[in-house]
Amino acid sequence: MNEIIFQGRKLKSKFSNLIKVKKYAEKIMNEKSRKQSLRMLSYGVYVLSSMSEGTYCVSTVTWVSQASFEPPLISVCIKRESASYEIVKKRGEYFLHILGENQQDMASSFFKPTVLEHGKLNGHEFRLYNELPLLKEVPAYLQCKVVEILENGDHPLFLAEVVDAVINYDCKPLELRKTNWSYGG
Amino acid sequence: MNEIIFQGRKLKSKFSNLIKVKKYAEKIMNEKSRKQSLRMLSYGVYVLSSMSEGTYCVSTVTWVSQASFEPPLISVCIKRESASYEIVKKRGEYFLHILGENQQDMASSFFKPTVLEHGKLNGHEFRLYNELPLLKEVPAYLQCKVVEILENGDHPLFLAEVVDAVINYDCKPLELRKTNWSYGG
Repeated sequence: MNEIIFQGRKLKSKFSNLIKVKKYAEKIMNEKSRKQSLRMLSYGVYVLSSMSEGTYCVSTVTWVSQASFEPPLISVCIKRESASYEIVKKRGEYFLHILGENQQDMASSFFKPTVLEHGKLNGHEFRLYNELPLLKEVPAYLQCKVVEILENGDHPLFLAEVVDAVINYDCKPLELRKTNWSYGG
Repeated sequence: MNEIIFQGRKLKSKFSNLIKVKKYAEKIMNEKSRKQSLRMLSYGVYVLSSMSEGTYCVSTVTWVSQASFEPPLISVCIKRESASYEIVKKRGEYFLHILGENQQDMASSFFKPTVLEHGKLNGHEFRLYNELPLLKEVPAYLQCKVVEILENGDHPLFLAEVVDAVINYDCKPLELRKTNWSYGG
């Protein structure tokens, strides 16, 4: 009887190891297919800018979508661990610059922290408009006022009203998939 | 004196008309550039499905974005005046199907109200999974649980956790710009 119980225990313990291995394998598989399927979502590449208390932030963002026609709203998700998150939250306003298909280099220059040098932001000309830094080279931009923030997750979602929009010149917009970068998963 | 005042009034009235015309022209211009620039944002084309109290909803959506890596969150904006808005809000769960680049016809079939006929939804095969309708032909899908709803504007934003994700087969995803449809402005 003891031996059966003993064997029973051993068997149980082996089973539980097998279940652990199976669960671990499933987890890895799920994470892989989650990453792969989330990377099938389509995005553009944009540059967001703002300023608060004399500090500029300019950063490349991709998780952007319109969220309403009337009033015109857009959502932008901003990495919590970033200067942009702090500054846009304080200021409640930003510009979203739309890039042209030939402006991938410009997008990559704003992966780095924002530096003001020789009157340029990370090497790019700008002017102040409504005390916000506005990049000069872009085909179009939206001026946005934050109306709600969802603090969930690692990229809080800023819902903002589009209060103005300007087209500088016609061009095809830069798409994330064409850059061979990915942001998602 | 009366005449001057009279003339003065006329002049003022002319001025105010001119200002009205100018403001109207500016409004039209702003709306035009707002529409044009918002249409420069990039989107995929997806099919959202849910079910509540025996009623199915399956509809094509484009305003979708990831919103967090950890936990994995996505945002989907759903037209307020739609069956999907009511059903997803009641149910708190949905599938987001990712379409392949050759599935534009499938997307257009879900512009219409959802009809269950001969065991198909708007002509497409499905099965119930977790009491939610899951389309069979798609390359990938995400199973999502709603965590927050922002009710602003005409397309409330549903923030949801991706609880499962499945890849059925490899393919290039359908992008809105390639369909020559537009949804935004």
